[in-house]
Amino acid sequence: MGGGRGWLVVFEGGEGVGKSTQLALVAERLAAAAVPHRICREPGGTPLGDRVRELLLHADVAVAPAAEAALFAASRAQLVADVLQPALAAGEVVLLDRFLLSTYAYQVGGRGLPEGPVREANRLATDGIVPDLTLVLTLGPSTGPDGGLTRATTRGPADRIERADAGFHARVAEAFRTFTAAAWQATHPECGPIIAIDADGSVATVQARIAERLAAAIPPCRALVGTA
Amino acid sequence: MGGGRGWLVVFEGGEGVGKSTQLALVAERLAAAAVPHRICREPGGTPLGDRVRELLLHADVAVAPAAEAALFAASRAQLVADVLQPALAAGEVVLLDRFLLSTYAYQVGGRGLPEGPVREANRLATDGIVPDLTLVLTLGPSTGPDGGLTRATTRGPADRIERADAGFHARVAEAFRTFTAAAWQATHPECGPIIAIDADGSVATVQARIAERLAAAIPPCRALVGTA
Repeated sequence: MGGGRGWLVVFEGGEGVGKSTQLALVAERLAAAAVPHRICREPGGTPLGDRVRELLLHADVAVAPAAEAALFAASRAQLVADVLQPALAAGEVVLLDRFLLSTYAYQVGGRGLPEGPVREANRLATDGIVPDLTLVLTLGPSTGPDGGLTRATTRGPADRIERADAGFHARVAEAFRTFTAAAWQATHPECGPIIAIDADGSVATVQARIAERLAAAIPPCRALVGTA
Repeated sequence: MGGGRGWLVVFEGGEGVGKSTQLALVAERLAAAAVPHRICREPGGTPLGDRVRELLLHADVAVAPAAEAALFAASRAQLVADVLQPALAAGEVVLLDRFLLSTYAYQVGGRGLPEGPVREANRLATDGIVPDLTLVLTLGPSTGPDGGLTRATTRGPADRIERADAGFHARVAEAFRTFTAAAWQATHPECGPIIAIDADGSVATVQARIAERLAAAIPPCRALVGTA
């Protein structure tokens, strides 16, 4: 939480696992309960971040793996400085769609960049902010070897990262599975506590699982239990 | 040089010291001598880098110090992968307007970012490429406390970095002075050998100083001596 009085909750997972839908539902229910909160997503969330998002996902330019990692870090640094730090200082619950774990999954796991320098680059970007809780939404093997990728790419044109090959997405999915292990978390304190959420099932079923975990860990989220 | 057969020569210095002019002159003379070479500048030099340059210098968006460092690293990573590595592998002399030292001067010295994480972030970006020689052009105290800043900003509208306050530019100038010390170079092997060039005097006088140092250190640049 980096010294603030608010709460940083991160939603993570591969393509098409439903995290943005679930995050929006949590936000609706926090709004109904008058809990001060906000939604953010990476990359983006600031004027600079939105420009970087366009470069990363939709611009027709070549992006090398190390450049990709640096661009995500740039968007993150601006979001931390201009949005997350003020929101947390004001006591808000911040619901963030992707953060550090996506970097470890996509740029380290997927692209194969070395973890050490990527971690150091993100030490600058996060400026000491550690999530209070990260939920990793995971789909079972019935979804197929690409996780939710097919689900993601049938909802609209694929972006540059969605268009990466199947091997890339398999490595990303494998990386997300390792993050919920206690041993991984013990060596990555910058990521804070991480729990897996089974994302198979109806939207309401998955939302109930998320609400239960949030209510247990994030005091202002107690409002979520019993209001579904 | 990162295993290539070419030569990487970097021109560095604060605003308005004349490095771009001097670099262009060296390129003209290498062309006259039929030495394979190319000019590059940071940020920029690739389609992604040019978009990042626009964001860094001219876009009307807030850029936090850590985001600034990450954006420079992104542009650098793409330049290294798509331009520098192929050019060096092809045996060219690459004349590069700004590289790692500018990051140490502007983002570490000027903005005050911690050196360790900045170095690691750039370890990803440079991918093992080390300059064969870096020339730091320096102006004497007669130019005034802002170094060449006045000179730089009278040649056109100031960019975002030129518009930073005088304290920032004084810290940048001080940083550039430290880089030519043997002790600094010994602890920063990723920057390669660095020498100071006195940039006071006529363009021809400064060019002669540069040609002499290049001819001594970079074999294909022997062609520069006696052809001025």
